[in-house]
Amino acid sequence: MQRLDRAFEQASVGAISGAVGTYAATSPDFEQRVLDRLGIGRETISTQVVARDRHAELLQAIALAGAGLERLATEIRHLQRTEVREVEEPFRSGQKGSSAMPHKRNPITTERITGLARVLRANATTAVENVALWHERDISHSGAERVILPGSTILLDYMQHLAIRVVRGMVVHEDGMRDNLDLTCGALFSQRVLLALVEGGMQRDAAYRVVQELAQRAWDERVALRGLLEQREDLELDLDAIFDVGHYTRHAQEIVGRLGDGDARGFSPRSA
Amino acid sequence: MQRLDRAFEQASVGAISGAVGTYAATSPDFEQRVLDRLGIGRETISTQVVARDRHAELLQAIALAGAGLERLATEIRHLQRTEVREVEEPFRSGQKGSSAMPHKRNPITTERITGLARVLRANATTAVENVALWHERDISHSGAERVILPGSTILLDYMQHLAIRVVRGMVVHEDGMRDNLDLTCGALFSQRVLLALVEGGMQRDAAYRVVQELAQRAWDERVALRGLLEQREDLELDLDAIFDVGHYTRHAQEIVGRLGDGDARGFSPRSA
Amino acid sequence: MQRLDRAFEQASVGAISGAVGTYAATSPDFEQRVLDRLGIGRETISTQVVARDRHAELLQAIALAGAGLERLATEIRHLQRTEVREVEEPFRSGQKGSSAMPHKRNPITTERITGLARVLRANATTAVENVALWHERDISHSGAERVILPGSTILLDYMQHLAIRVVRGMVVHEDGMRDNLDLTCGALFSQRVLLALVEGGMQRDAAYRVVQELAQRAWDERVALRGLLEQREDLELDLDAIFDVGHYTRHAQEIVGRLGDGDARGFSPRSA
Amino acid sequence: MQRLDRAFEQASVGAISGAVGTYAATSPDFEQRVLDRLGIGRETISTQVVARDRHAELLQAIALAGAGLERLATEIRHLQRTEVREVEEPFRSGQKGSSAMPHKRNPITTERITGLARVLRANATTAVENVALWHERDISHSGAERVILPGSTILLDYMQHLAIRVVRGMVVHEDGMRDNLDLTCGALFSQRVLLALVEGGMQRDAAYRVVQELAQRAWDERVALRGLLEQREDLELDLDAIFDVGHYTRHAQEIVGRLGDGDARGFSPRSA
Repeated sequence: MQRLDRAFEQASVGAISGAVGTYAATSPDFEQRVLDRLGIGRETISTQVVARDRHAELLQAIALAGAGLERLATEIRHLQRTEVREVEEPFRSGQKGSSAMPHKRNPITTERITGLARVLRANATTAVENVALWHERDISHSGAERVILPGSTILLDYMQHLAIRVVRGMVVHEDGMRDNLDLTCGALFSQRVLLALVEGGMQRDAAYRVVQELAQRAWDERVALRGLLEQREDLELDLDAIFDVGHYTRHAQEIVGRLGDGDARGFSPRSA
Repeated sequence: MQRLDRAFEQASVGAISGAVGTYAATSPDFEQRVLDRLGIGRETISTQVVARDRHAELLQAIALAGAGLERLATEIRHLQRTEVREVEEPFRSGQKGSSAMPHKRNPITTERITGLARVLRANATTAVENVALWHERDISHSGAERVILPGSTILLDYMQHLAIRVVRGMVVHEDGMRDNLDLTCGALFSQRVLLALVEGGMQRDAAYRVVQELAQRAWDERVALRGLLEQREDLELDLDAIFDVGHYTRHAQEIVGRLGDGDARGFSPRSA
Repeated sequence: MQRLDRAFEQASVGAISGAVGTYAATSPDFEQRVLDRLGIGRETISTQVVARDRHAELLQAIALAGAGLERLATEIRHLQRTEVREVEEPFRSGQKGSSAMPHKRNPITTERITGLARVLRANATTAVENVALWHERDISHSGAERVILPGSTILLDYMQHLAIRVVRGMVVHEDGMRDNLDLTCGALFSQRVLLALVEGGMQRDAAYRVVQELAQRAWDERVALRGLLEQREDLELDLDAIFDVGHYTRHAQEIVGRLGDGDARGFSPRSA
Repeated sequence: MQRLDRAFEQASVGAISGAVGTYAATSPDFEQRVLDRLGIGRETISTQVVARDRHAELLQAIALAGAGLERLATEIRHLQRTEVREVEEPFRSGQKGSSAMPHKRNPITTERITGLARVLRANATTAVENVALWHERDISHSGAERVILPGSTILLDYMQHLAIRVVRGMVVHEDGMRDNLDLTCGALFSQRVLLALVEGGMQRDAAYRVVQELAQRAWDERVALRGLLEQREDLELDLDAIFDVGHYTRHAQEIVGRLGDGDARGFSPRSA
């Protein structure tokens, strides 16, 4: 969002400096008065046209915003797989399911977002090609921009609309999430076992071998890693603490709280 | 043209093989009968969709055809420069000239072709991104193709239309061509002088020094190289033969005759 | 493969026609003799350089071959997911697993193929930009080609090497495939039930409602669709025939047999 | 320059938050202390990897910087044409000229910059494709980044080096510039004539017709527009004022002074 704001801001400039930027028939003052009325800035040094690096930055920011939506869409497409089924796109009543399997709901909206993100990044390449105009002012960019400027702005608006609809209506299967975590038969806790063994005094290499062997066995034979550990009386471990999923969410509030913080390098919080 | 023919040909296939390509509810025979009626070929091995490498090849061929038109357009744009002025795009009566200089005719049509060629190559990239669908059959390509398939086919048709109009109505300034050749004050014949000196028995290095010095002087001082050579009584040269522009066009008929010959590696002549 | 053969073939041409293609210091015969010795074809009409559309076609074919490998890689990456686990890349003994979960094997090779396919398609765009040289012979393409020609040819070779290694050493979990098919509790046979009901005389709309309701129930409640159908004494169905997975593979031999057939529109079989 | 600074700044972040960003084996405090020592910022919300939109923005900024250099290079290539010859790249003593015409100096450095700018923009597309990783953390980006990150940073550095060398050693032919202005036989002053006629009370349409006719005649017959105007005793014009080239440079100081001003919308001055 910050990138888009910045890109639109820097692209909001105009120029009335004549055919080669010399103010042959106007003047800087005249240009400034007109641009002030329009509420836009002045191109620092213009030719007959505003330099196309500004438009290119805009199209690049749109492509990157589209890639961000594609990232979200890709996540949901994975989570909606039949074998994963942790999350589903909203399914409008009346919407037809898969043609061959009426019960199956394909992630058609996030697939659409994914495909359109490709168009946005291609348009950005065209915009960068537009920068090096002949004598800094031929009009070859013009025809291309009539395709890519409305194309990219309208598509991003549409994709954002789709993404908001998906997020608002998203169906979350908490039980499916828990089931999938259990699929590893506890092997996902292997790192915690390892750390506990090391903290308990075992050499790291030895601990790694123990954990790898047991985790592999749990995974291959589909038996609970915790059960395998319970049988090992030589290992002193607080299994309740190790197999506590709460451990993994103890910083969740803090992490989510960073959203909107703008504490990231290079970004500042966005005013409402 | 041959690339386009080939690309459209290989893309002209269909598939009716069910949701995962197993003919669960149809059969290869049924598919064949329908495709025969449609007059198109069969996708060798289809999933729910025809593989997208075919569409990508089509968009690539269109991008390359566009680059060919851009090549022509770039040539004309150069030749129409005020300082070159050997060729001009047709100027429709009633068409306005440059806004600041009414007499000036900008190559707006070939600039437009140039810009649109950028859009075509960007669309081809999107088409190649569409190939690796999830499980060889998600529908993320669909939204993108609704933009790029009509976009690229319509734009190429339009660009070809523009290019034909430009070529048919092109204004050729033969005198301007001759003047520009004369701009070098004969230095463009320097290679021929060099060869004549070597054939006359001079060592190549010595000949090169003589020619470079005289050609540079002709070019810098804007005096005729032929005149400078006439003053060098030590050099025996048939200047009429050397400065005969006909030498450069002696193979012109043969070269132009190769067009349509299809004798190029990898291409065969196109039937009418 | 056929596209690559064709692309390399058409790019295997040379030219010795002088600085502007007029054979000013040579002749077509001389050019032909040299090219014959090199075993390559002649550029139909050359300038100082061979036209760059040939190199662009080559880079496009390489990009498309890369997309084909990416298609394969994407399939394997999906099948190797923890929740799917039908296929796994070969895991070299000594190769470390996931850093946090020693038992977990990430599809690192197919992920690498996927990423490199992106580089190949970007290089193709550069190659198409190289076509419209100034006066059909500036040398701006030269620097770019020193990056993209070795880059794309070496990367494709490497990707093919990776892909062959993956296919040869691929671990296939047949039981995992069967388990995943069972995940739908038989709902994947719903289309066959529908067709059987219609063939048995039921109206299609009515049959669809019956099937959709039962399939949805099987899917939601994780009970076998076959069991639900058995309880419906009003429906006369040959359930053994309907739930026969062999139905879906009855054309498998024929389909696979088409590989190498070259019966696809626009392609001919490749000689050994 | 400002875009590059900003892009490098926002990309200078790290993350030590574990395999899925939950700090399973570390903590936000630990991460912060390490990053502080490294002098880089923290990824706001990381997974196993820093989000690739940051790298994409960096590659986009590099592509745009390359397009800026390409813009400069394109200008010089035009100005160095034989028919224009207003500016020439530095020619190193010992550098060979055109192979066929020893006196001819090709703009090989700016052509190289032009070609390499194509590589930079293609690399940026790859970087945007890298954003939507599977589960926000597959490693498909890794192989691609090993090509494009060193590739783009090294190429931009090299291109900047070339551009600086060109600008520092550029040969400027002031007389050539004046000659080229004279090529229009004064038609380039036609706009000023038009304005003077209108200010003198003539209707704009009538004035336009007068000017267009005379400018066209000057241009076509290569006679001085000023001479044609002098013959028109019906027109009262201050020809010395109109044909004063100083008019076109009266704002030159001001315009050039804006460089480094940072008064452009969206940019602030860069501290030394």
